[in-house]
Amino acid sequence: MATTSCFAALASDQDLVPHHIERRSIGPKDVAIDIAFCGVCHTDLHFAKNDWGRSNYPLVPGHEIVGTVNAVGADVKKFKLGQKVAVGCFVNSCHTCSSCAVDLEQYCLNGVTGTYNAASVDPGGFTYGGYSKHIVVDEHFVLRMPEGLDLAGAAPLLCAGITTYSPLKHWNIQAGMRVGVIGLGGLGHMGIKFAHAMGAQTTMITSSAHKAQDALRLGADGVLLSSDAAAMQAMANQFDFLLNTIPVYHDYNVYLPLLKVDGTMCIVGTIGMNAELNARSLIMGRRKIAGSLVGGIQETQEMLDFCAQHQILSDIEMIPMDGINQAYERMQHSDVKYRFVIDMSTLA
Amino acid sequence: MATTSCFAALASDQDLVPHHIERRSIGPKDVAIDIAFCGVCHTDLHFAKNDWGRSNYPLVPGHEIVGTVNAVGADVKKFKLGQKVAVGCFVNSCHTCSSCAVDLEQYCLNGVTGTYNAASVDPGGFTYGGYSKHIVVDEHFVLRMPEGLDLAGAAPLLCAGITTYSPLKHWNIQAGMRVGVIGLGGLGHMGIKFAHAMGAQTTMITSSAHKAQDALRLGADGVLLSSDAAAMQAMANQFDFLLNTIPVYHDYNVYLPLLKVDGTMCIVGTIGMNAELNARSLIMGRRKIAGSLVGGIQETQEMLDFCAQHQILSDIEMIPMDGINQAYERMQHSDVKYRFVIDMSTLA
Repeated sequence: MATTSCFAALASDQDLVPHHIERRSIGPKDVAIDIAFCGVCHTDLHFAKNDWGRSNYPLVPGHEIVGTVNAVGADVKKFKLGQKVAVGCFVNSCHTCSSCAVDLEQYCLNGVTGTYNAASVDPGGFTYGGYSKHIVVDEHFVLRMPEGLDLAGAAPLLCAGITTYSPLKHWNIQAGMRVGVIGLGGLGHMGIKFAHAMGAQTTMITSSAHKAQDALRLGADGVLLSSDAAAMQAMANQFDFLLNTIPVYHDYNVYLPLLKVDGTMCIVGTIGMNAELNARSLIMGRRKIAGSLVGGIQETQEMLDFCAQHQILSDIEMIPMDGINQAYERMQHSDVKYRFVIDMSTLA
Repeated sequence: MATTSCFAALASDQDLVPHHIERRSIGPKDVAIDIAFCGVCHTDLHFAKNDWGRSNYPLVPGHEIVGTVNAVGADVKKFKLGQKVAVGCFVNSCHTCSSCAVDLEQYCLNGVTGTYNAASVDPGGFTYGGYSKHIVVDEHFVLRMPEGLDLAGAAPLLCAGITTYSPLKHWNIQAGMRVGVIGLGGLGHMGIKFAHAMGAQTTMITSSAHKAQDALRLGADGVLLSSDAAAMQAMANQFDFLLNTIPVYHDYNVYLPLLKVDGTMCIVGTIGMNAELNARSLIMGRRKIAGSLVGGIQETQEMLDFCAQHQILSDIEMIPMDGINQAYERMQHSDVKYRFVIDMSTLA
């Protein structure tokens, strides 16, 4: 296939710039996609800047991808030309391990292939992501966009959406349960929408009093200020489930007493850093701390269908492709409500 | 009731000494017990020395109690004179909260009453434990000792036993599962026996190579040295459940990669101290860290019956009452296989 235009990080200390990459030829099971929109995840920024020490340049970020099928391989069964589709955080897995066998490709024991910066047989030796005009993906890892879902607002569902939907479904959140969503950012705002749509009594737990109004608008039934010790004490033993979306180092012990006996706090916000944990709160109520990573392909499709049914979208700020470096600046100050989405038609 | 002889800590910096305490009169639902044996738990030592800053003196330790009914109140239905009985870690709870309502008295939301050092209406204002000739306990909190279970070897079942049995049952350990027991002491040696009896493939995980032989004797199918990085790596993603009995500060991150996707590590050994936790291992496999505290009365009875059925006892060293201070010395150097039990007939 010909080269296609994209925005890439060429080194860790430089801004993203226009670039050309080569996409692989369309194999028999591949779907070629014209990208309409791509969401901007904080992970993109970490990889562009090599914060985790494992970035390969040129690096094309982007794993919240929506667009239109422009070509399909000979053996493709699920998709046809012109169909609206989406791609999330990974584009390959082994298909044979115990995780893949139960549609949990994200936990592939042989290593899932990330949508960008992952070793692959693609030209260049690594996958390239969605800050691009086109992408070629095996049909197994392509999602069907349901009718009636705004494409731009849906883009962040592919990461921020499934990251919060999956644990809420796994822990069977439903009416009659009380859920706390800790932290109001890209993940937290989706967590509130999903917990509310699933029927749970939903509380926004935040250290920022000024976020209360927005939390209620997004669907929270109440707001709990984590800095208010008396309020936190009053809510001890009240929550069935806590979805912890805080993206920085923090003390888990502050939140664990909020859980009922047998309750779970699931971590989706931090990765790669230690936290303080005193097992006392776990032991004194058989409480659990768990983690969760995005969701499998089947569950991601279920999430998109759930969003269409309940008209759930991300709250977004649309930017042109050449606004990405300014967007990264703002993200570092948490200055976005609640997800930047790149309009890929602005990329020449 | 008259005073009864016991061994008590009278101050945090002194040895335990002979003493007399007053037990409450036998109420209508009370059972009075002649104590035959009392196990020695590390918690006893912490309370005697006021390690946690909340000891009340005189303090009579002991919550692994077995003996014989010598009197019953007018309304007692479950027990009769001469019957062999046992008392564990708590002797009262509210009976009305959501935990008590489902036989999880240990998680009583209004505060369970510990067998010693807990505020109570007993003479002296606090409960007194099992380093004593007698004890008076509400029948709800008294266990029936099944026939055919050696009383002395059974005493540690009331704490070390139920502490390890309860999480293994709660997480439904059975044949076809692989369980790792981390740490070989009073708790760990019971964990191996129970996991083995439940049919699990049981691995002792220890930093002490010299404990391997004993672990196999106790029922482990294999031993994994936590200091052997290559062996630990080879066992990544292999365990359904880890029972963590380590009683001191340690790094949870060493063990979490051993768990399969959706596996759980349950903490029963440490309380009151922080540990290192990096959520990465949780997130990358939807793994969980949980805690568990002893067990409810109904489950403790089930555990005793299970032990009778499978002839499971604690490995003990019997000591006379006046050997307690020397036993505490040895416990501080982990020099006991695997539980001291006091022969209460040696108390005048």
